[in-house]
Amino acid sequence: MLKAVTRLVTVKPCVYRIPLKTSPIFVRMASTASLLKYLNQEDAIAIDQELFNEYGFSVDQLMELAGLSCAQAVASLYPKGKVLVIAGPGNNGGDGIVAARHLKLFGYTPSILYPKPSKNDLMQRLVKQTTLMDISYLESLPSDYPSDFKVVVDAIFGFSFKPPIRDPFGDILKTLIKHQSTLPIFSIDIPSGWHVEDGPPADDGTALRPHGLISLTAPKLCARRFQGCAHFLGGRFVPDSLAKKYSLNLPTYPGTLGYLRLDDGEKQKI
Amino acid sequence: MLKAVTRLVTVKPCVYRIPLKTSPIFVRMASTASLLKYLNQEDAIAIDQELFNEYGFSVDQLMELAGLSCAQAVASLYPKGKVLVIAGPGNNGGDGIVAARHLKLFGYTPSILYPKPSKNDLMQRLVKQTTLMDISYLESLPSDYPSDFKVVVDAIFGFSFKPPIRDPFGDILKTLIKHQSTLPIFSIDIPSGWHVEDGPPADDGTALRPHGLISLTAPKLCARRFQGCAHFLGGRFVPDSLAKKYSLNLPTYPGTLGYLRLDDGEKQKI
Repeated sequence: MLKAVTRLVTVKPCVYRIPLKTSPIFVRMASTASLLKYLNQEDAIAIDQELFNEYGFSVDQLMELAGLSCAQAVASLYPKGKVLVIAGPGNNGGDGIVAARHLKLFGYTPSILYPKPSKNDLMQRLVKQTTLMDISYLESLPSDYPSDFKVVVDAIFGFSFKPPIRDPFGDILKTLIKHQSTLPIFSIDIPSGWHVEDGPPADDGTALRPHGLISLTAPKLCARRFQGCAHFLGGRFVPDSLAKKYSLNLPTYPGTLGYLRLDDGEKQKI
Repeated sequence: MLKAVTRLVTVKPCVYRIPLKTSPIFVRMASTASLLKYLNQEDAIAIDQELFNEYGFSVDQLMELAGLSCAQAVASLYPKGKVLVIAGPGNNGGDGIVAARHLKLFGYTPSILYPKPSKNDLMQRLVKQTTLMDISYLESLPSDYPSDFKVVVDAIFGFSFKPPIRDPFGDILKTLIKHQSTLPIFSIDIPSGWHVEDGPPADDGTALRPHGLISLTAPKLCARRFQGCAHFLGGRFVPDSLAKKYSLNLPTYPGTLGYLRLDDGEKQKI
């Protein structure tokens, strides 16, 4: 493990040293974030359904914007290089595959691990798009994991996840957790394996502890337990009327980018 | 017409004074742009079809990215305020409606004139989304046109347009042209009424002369006749393999935004 002891991964704007301490600390939030509503699972599902059924958005539309914002947030935090995206079979996995496509256009070199391919038409088209864009699909985690990836994008489970974790994702998560002090994890919407409201399944250091997290639409309650470096909000598509109905108190996104940083972006002592 | 004579619209980074001279001038292009391939109509259609049929993109996906890039380019050029989007019944109109939705999220106040509503499912959903986001639909051009709009987004006809122009678009274009020295026009992909390859239908000052233009995917041949302030490239979704097949020589987009400026951004003497 000499490699793990001496490895120093420099990321923007945090310096990520190993080993990552897992003792409970609270990330100071910017003033806007402190007003934000953190959603329970029921509200998260209801808002999602309302976007589709009442506002007439397609999954294609919202996934494109969500995945783009994830890619933008990843690009703001990690240097260009190899990125591993691990995609589950549902919409969280779709967000990850879309993010991989945009990361490729941003000049990164993404690979995708997608061990449970969905038969859903959109998911199959996402695979086609990324394959034809020369993004490689891996059969399993590389034997030399953590290899030379700059970051792993965790797009395995989203807010509709209900335990138990089924293999191969259980084994994959164990490997990610084992090496997470060496290779940073960036989670989309929910750190995989976490309860949407209660957070990590255990406080004994055996849970996923992502370095970065992007909450989509609005943060879920579990995000209050996030102790990593950078917490983003993404998915800039929420109509004002919907935000008001659910009292989301969304902060104002700056400029025309699809993401904003909820913490103050200062270096976090870890 | 005293109002028209004294009105000064300050836009970034150009100062747009009226009356706009329509004598032929050439916009100096940045070095990247000089290498760009300008497409004929046949290639533009072929690339579009290949994105859908070979790469598996949906219209929802590409229209979302195209419309977002249009909104970003508009926001880079015009101050916040009232924006009029004029949408045709086809995909060019859809790009415009998507752009209006994003402009609303950016803090602008868009209205949409969409006189020939399509029965296409996506177009109907776009109308639903924008209506529920409190974007107003106009029945016709306001009687006090050019009113107090900051810019008109021309999303009437795209690269598949074939003459003749049918009413009500003929009348609308005449009004836009009459006031284009007072109220700037920002065209999506093709200045409406222009031949995709040959450019404006006449050189006698009776054609649309947009102040801004965003070419999507790659510029069409007519864009060489563009004499306005700012020429953008948008729609950052073209796979490398497709760009190579058609020798597009696309410039590198900076950062993670969906658009880039093809001219050098200096003030243009008009």
